[in-house]
Amino acid sequence: MAQAYWQNGITEKACFSLFCRRLPVNRGFLVFAGLDDIIDYLEEFRFTNEDIEYLRSLNIFESEFLLYLKTLRFRGTVRAMKEGDIFFANEPVVEVEAPIIEAQIIETYLINQINVQSMLATKASRIVVAAKGLAVVDFASRRTQGLDSALDFAKLSYAAGFSGTSNVLAGREFGIPIQGTMAHSFINAFIDEKSAFRAYAKSFPKFCTFLVDTYDSIQGVKNAIVVAGEMRAEGNNLFAIRIDSGDLFDLTNNSRRLLDQSGFSDVKIIVSGGLDEFDIQALLEKGAKVDGFGVGTKPGVSSDAPWTDMVYKLVEYAGQAVVKLSSGKVTLPGPKQVNRILDKDGYFTGDILSLKSEKISDKTVSLLQEKMVSGERIVEKSRIKDIRICLAEGIKSIPGKYKTIVNPEVYSADISPKLGELDDLIKSNIKSKLSL
Amino acid sequence: MAQAYWQNGITEKACFSLFCRRLPVNRGFLVFAGLDDIIDYLEEFRFTNEDIEYLRSLNIFESEFLLYLKTLRFRGTVRAMKEGDIFFANEPVVEVEAPIIEAQIIETYLINQINVQSMLATKASRIVVAAKGLAVVDFASRRTQGLDSALDFAKLSYAAGFSGTSNVLAGREFGIPIQGTMAHSFINAFIDEKSAFRAYAKSFPKFCTFLVDTYDSIQGVKNAIVVAGEMRAEGNNLFAIRIDSGDLFDLTNNSRRLLDQSGFSDVKIIVSGGLDEFDIQALLEKGAKVDGFGVGTKPGVSSDAPWTDMVYKLVEYAGQAVVKLSSGKVTLPGPKQVNRILDKDGYFTGDILSLKSEKISDKTVSLLQEKMVSGERIVEKSRIKDIRICLAEGIKSIPGKYKTIVNPEVYSADISPKLGELDDLIKSNIKSKLSL
Repeated sequence: MAQAYWQNGITEKACFSLFCRRLPVNRGFLVFAGLDDIIDYLEEFRFTNEDIEYLRSLNIFESEFLLYLKTLRFRGTVRAMKEGDIFFANEPVVEVEAPIIEAQIIETYLINQINVQSMLATKASRIVVAAKGLAVVDFASRRTQGLDSALDFAKLSYAAGFSGTSNVLAGREFGIPIQGTMAHSFINAFIDEKSAFRAYAKSFPKFCTFLVDTYDSIQGVKNAIVVAGEMRAEGNNLFAIRIDSGDLFDLTNNSRRLLDQSGFSDVKIIVSGGLDEFDIQALLEKGAKVDGFGVGTKPGVSSDAPWTDMVYKLVEYAGQAVVKLSSGKVTLPGPKQVNRILDKDGYFTGDILSLKSEKISDKTVSLLQEKMVSGERIVEKSRIKDIRICLAEGIKSIPGKYKTIVNPEVYSADISPKLGELDDLIKSNIKSKLSL
Repeated sequence: MAQAYWQNGITEKACFSLFCRRLPVNRGFLVFAGLDDIIDYLEEFRFTNEDIEYLRSLNIFESEFLLYLKTLRFRGTVRAMKEGDIFFANEPVVEVEAPIIEAQIIETYLINQINVQSMLATKASRIVVAAKGLAVVDFASRRTQGLDSALDFAKLSYAAGFSGTSNVLAGREFGIPIQGTMAHSFINAFIDEKSAFRAYAKSFPKFCTFLVDTYDSIQGVKNAIVVAGEMRAEGNNLFAIRIDSGDLFDLTNNSRRLLDQSGFSDVKIIVSGGLDEFDIQALLEKGAKVDGFGVGTKPGVSSDAPWTDMVYKLVEYAGQAVVKLSSGKVTLPGPKQVNRILDKDGYFTGDILSLKSEKISDKTVSLLQEKMVSGERIVEKSRIKDIRICLAEGIKSIPGKYKTIVNPEVYSADISPKLGELDDLIKSNIKSKLSL
């Protein structure tokens, strides 16, 4: 495509808009994430000599075009929401203005990163909403779709409010608390379960969680109580037990009773084993005696919605607004602004999608702001603790009916009169051309 | 866990087994992939000085243990299936024998890579089965969960029989044919659709596919026919049209008729737009006039089964076979072999799970073979074209009832008498200890 643009003189400035056409099932909101990575990418964007030689070997590119690619850099403008912002269907989260080849050739990277990071940040936020303030730890790394999404999920789930991650590299890279317990193999390696618990207590006397379901969960709790008693005699406290299989409602309630009866009401109960926000909500609604959750597989791949309908569409070329009319995939024309209205208590009460150039009101918040100008970053990188604060405030500001875990109401942005007029004009122009 | 093993003298040799407990929905078989990456990882495995300093800063590790980690290398043995092998539930695909800390600490990486690569190779194979010999191109990169899984899917889908990928980096890295067409933005950037087609034909006169659904698909086909006529006058042939939205059955049949009536029966019809193996099968069963498919979003995340129940379990420690009995997660003891029986036509007729040391028959194929010994690779890296051949043969050898797209029959491995005896013995030992 780039060569065809170049050979045909299609090199004017373009504006592309990145947005999600429809929210996935049961999603009442999405969380924006991935901006810092795309800015890093755009700042470093270039073809190496090896890249050029590979392209030359394909015999489909002309030499002059390859010379052009060799010096190509991204020198455009990026307007975007900020990391951790809440967004809804059809709202641009990133807009790129640059000569069309620069803006087009980055498409795949931009969609990929904003799609996966926003999807994972959203999934993690839903878990946090369902857990109603209880601690949640990320155990996802072994089952994410690759290694970079393991790091992404560790980072984004912490930003969403998790208390820590079992991914030690993420701990080092992002300064996230690392947390973990033993695996079943640890129990299996000892002559019996109590020996394994004693060994672990010896190594981690101050922060110790016992996995109790390797052979028989209730017997495991009884063994944990024995070792917790030995620990107490030495001035240490067992932090928690973890149950990873079976009927978690029955097992947690029975474990709580056994622990309390034995004088260990301070020992917490953590559950894990294929949990997602639906399971967590169901357990808490039934009144399970649980103090925290370890989650991994399903959240780490956003299993009920493992992709979003994120797209990157040309909305203006050479100063002319454009649209597509493909069945089910119609776009709105022109560079835009997302204007958010808050009520006096800070709740979102509505968004207005407007032309970028349009003045809506002093009272709305303009969510798209310049992040790169002439190919250079003009805002500092987000710190994970700032994203965590922004996201917590954002989630709090979503009215309850839009953030239920199942079947939330649809929050849809209004279209400003000027954007509506432009849309009508462009679409009727195209239709009259088509009918000629 | 490693520190607790080390501090408690649990440092003997262990055997861990990597297998999938249950196949995901509608999966009658899985395709093994990821071996070469895990061998590379194990060969390079070490803690850097920066890693050690980070761990020290956590104040939970003792200095001598950190010194031990600093010199830790993987020196174990890896037995595994080969890239592209077909496997079923509960069959070990990788077994690792090493001192327990070495074998344990690599768990997350091993599960992650074998899980994601096997899952994507399986999904791509299902698409190839459904497409019944028609060409399929990988368009997944923009929606995979991260960049490494985009490369993985490009590689693995080519191994599974796709004809090419739109991921140019994968083309360079793995020598895969790169294929692609224009995006809607390309059409939008021109004054009208015909101008866009003409420009593209000028740039790629020998291999040119027109995307026809930007404004109106049938009008788009008519415009493609006009430009195809102009191309023919200059001695070139339009290769294909692509339809990316709408009712693909009606549109392809109408397009075929229009093309044929205009003398362009050589122009192929390619469809895309959220397709997976279920859609492809349905289109072909209805008799859609289609010559090829572009697939992306759903296959690239294995959307109907975005994770598998892949686990890595201790099966032997210090020469003693071990098991876990957790509800729904019971394991079989000891290092194993997967023995496959083929009939005279080469079809799989059954697998036998046996002890590694057990002799089953000269007529079965032993699927687990040594790939690393003493921490060193002893087999060459697989070449993608060899995996492609192995996988095509493997798929052909699966009896039809196990490879239907929907509700395949369950192919389950038998357990050898000796493995069964050992399992009974170990489990009754544990149960008698629990009841004490």
